[in-house]
Amino acid sequence: MLDAFDRCRLHDDFRPVTELGAYPYYRPVEERLATGEVVVGGRVLVAAGSNDYLGLSADPRLKDAACRAIRSLGTGTSGSRLVNGSLALHETLEGRLAAFLGQEAAMVTPTGFLANLALSALAGPRDTVLADQLIHASLIDAVRLSRARLRRYRHNDLDHLERLLAGSDPAAAGLIVTEGMFSTTGTLCDLPGTAALARRHGARLVLDGAHDIGLLGPGGRGAAEHHGLLPAVDLHTMAFSKCLGTTGGAVAGPEQIMVYLRHHARSMVFSAALSPSSTAAALAALDIVETEPERRHRALAAAARLRADLAGLGFGTGASPTTIIPVHVGDVVLCCRLWRELFEEGVFATAMVPPGVPDGQSLIRVSTTALHTDAQLDRIASAFAAAGRRLGMIP
Amino acid sequence: MLDAFDRCRLHDDFRPVTELGAYPYYRPVEERLATGEVVVGGRVLVAAGSNDYLGLSADPRLKDAACRAIRSLGTGTSGSRLVNGSLALHETLEGRLAAFLGQEAAMVTPTGFLANLALSALAGPRDTVLADQLIHASLIDAVRLSRARLRRYRHNDLDHLERLLAGSDPAAAGLIVTEGMFSTTGTLCDLPGTAALARRHGARLVLDGAHDIGLLGPGGRGAAEHHGLLPAVDLHTMAFSKCLGTTGGAVAGPEQIMVYLRHHARSMVFSAALSPSSTAAALAALDIVETEPERRHRALAAAARLRADLAGLGFGTGASPTTIIPVHVGDVVLCCRLWRELFEEGVFATAMVPPGVPDGQSLIRVSTTALHTDAQLDRIASAFAAAGRRLGMIP
Repeated sequence: MLDAFDRCRLHDDFRPVTELGAYPYYRPVEERLATGEVVVGGRVLVAAGSNDYLGLSADPRLKDAACRAIRSLGTGTSGSRLVNGSLALHETLEGRLAAFLGQEAAMVTPTGFLANLALSALAGPRDTVLADQLIHASLIDAVRLSRARLRRYRHNDLDHLERLLAGSDPAAAGLIVTEGMFSTTGTLCDLPGTAALARRHGARLVLDGAHDIGLLGPGGRGAAEHHGLLPAVDLHTMAFSKCLGTTGGAVAGPEQIMVYLRHHARSMVFSAALSPSSTAAALAALDIVETEPERRHRALAAAARLRADLAGLGFGTGASPTTIIPVHVGDVVLCCRLWRELFEEGVFATAMVPPGVPDGQSLIRVSTTALHTDAQLDRIASAFAAAGRRLGMIP
Repeated sequence: MLDAFDRCRLHDDFRPVTELGAYPYYRPVEERLATGEVVVGGRVLVAAGSNDYLGLSADPRLKDAACRAIRSLGTGTSGSRLVNGSLALHETLEGRLAAFLGQEAAMVTPTGFLANLALSALAGPRDTVLADQLIHASLIDAVRLSRARLRRYRHNDLDHLERLLAGSDPAAAGLIVTEGMFSTTGTLCDLPGTAALARRHGARLVLDGAHDIGLLGPGGRGAAEHHGLLPAVDLHTMAFSKCLGTTGGAVAGPEQIMVYLRHHARSMVFSAALSPSSTAAALAALDIVETEPERRHRALAAAARLRADLAGLGFGTGASPTTIIPVHVGDVVLCCRLWRELFEEGVFATAMVPPGVPDGQSLIRVSTTALHTDAQLDRIASAFAAAGRRLGMIP
């Protein structure tokens, strides 16, 4: 037979940027400061690409809750939720999340990726899943595993979605899968239009709230609450690695669906349960989400300020109303060089290049958190100004 | 369209056992004692189904390491390894794991399920994956995602594997995927025979050491070391939720393959990184694996003793040489009733029923750990004696 490793030997996608000293990935963080800054290579950098929007991953209350759970429950769960890894703490968190999202029940999973993968149990080869072009890889993989027919519509293009729905087999079961807030662009889903189409065509609406639950909506319940449409969401998925400052994920929905997933979702049944520390940290974070709205207000205000500053410098930032600011570059090599210049200026941002984004649409993804001070935001803007001028990207 | 939720409404697989009060799943643990016992419903039970074979999940050294990491690095990583979630601690652990397993490099993933799923990047639609019938769901899902051709051979049946290899397309790349120690039966892979076939046919050998790394082999390096065949393993995967007493997973192999996976494995690229606490706990556990061989000796001796006692009572236990003792029952309802009687007797074991096992092959999975005292083992055997007699299963 041929050597299965050959495909890996051909891999040198990053040689051009590595040769320029601009390889932007897998930079190890040595310490995370209470200010939200990170220590990389002995230097204190402003974190400008974190998903920790509420700044909770270094919060003393989460740390205390996590350490208390470790003392009483240990550093692991020793098995899957199904057989012997369930904790009373998991059930407490599930009850809290279900109530928070206005759903009957919830199921906590070891990661957000595995929460989305659980959806593979909800569809079969005769079903159709309609998905926004920009949805997360874990949702695509869930559909692939389900063997349902996947039809992707252009980002937030409701005419396209409607044509696909109209052309779908009426004898197929249908799911529409989208995200509340898209992770690369920071754009919001057109939820009113999407929910109306779902209702009209009898499709169930699945919303991934990984980035928006905790951040958006009057009560922090996410993009669905922001649109006044929590009840229109049939199934809500989420990740604890963003606003909740830890690790894990969840699916929330009708009790009967959760019972089904608890027994049929392979990513749930065949995974060791979420650790006691992350479960406790998520509960502590949820307390803070419910009682400190000023955190989400600050994170969003910081983004508005920084977006205006970057646009004022001449960068193309789009107009997302969230904590994610895509700074459009286009070319891969230029994008990585900009990342490198920012890094030298003391700013740790994120380079997004193909296949994470379409060819020719490389960008620097900047994100703000509740911990960013005005001085830090100014430091990020100054770094962009200096780096952009050195590279001839702005006047 | 039809309602995608209908398939869930039809779910009442467990009604017969629930009506008997014998539903065996999702029992929440309230506390985990240093003795390895667990508190469920206010009662202290002997844990008899844990994968925590070395008894490390409640070890003070792991707890201390986890809490220290939380203090300096927080309760989460705020992003994927690729972009901003990498920790120096991850790299330290990767170096240690690679050296331990005799591989050039390793890649730490958020869970063991996601480590196996990373293998989907190694094969494509024109490739062939040959897999033991009993491999873990996560490995099957990896192959499904790769779209490679999946050919399954009967458990440890090398004649069957050889026929499949001989019938494979010589122009396809081939991978053989198996496990060092199978999680339901406790059997070992026939690694000498499997490795010889892999070599003869030019297929790469992928070994999942989830249950055996830390437990088997003179140095605790797993089933491959036990067979003296560490160098024959092309790619080793593992889970930290068994012998390492925490959460997480890893893939170890040649540096070039790891570089490829770090950029192409979707479960790696699109998942938030393993938490600081679990990374630190895994490192502390590895120290203990390397310095306290008596733990694995005790876990295996406990299994040998308990297996003999259960067989002496008249139960069919098979002859696995590991910490996993499958107590064969057959019928689903009888299996769940036995589970329930054991629970009442103070023993928290695991019921394995379809689809986790083939129809008619339901079993109680008993496993031993380094923490089991002789008195606890006697308590497990006594519970089986009392329960088995009440149900007319043994004389």
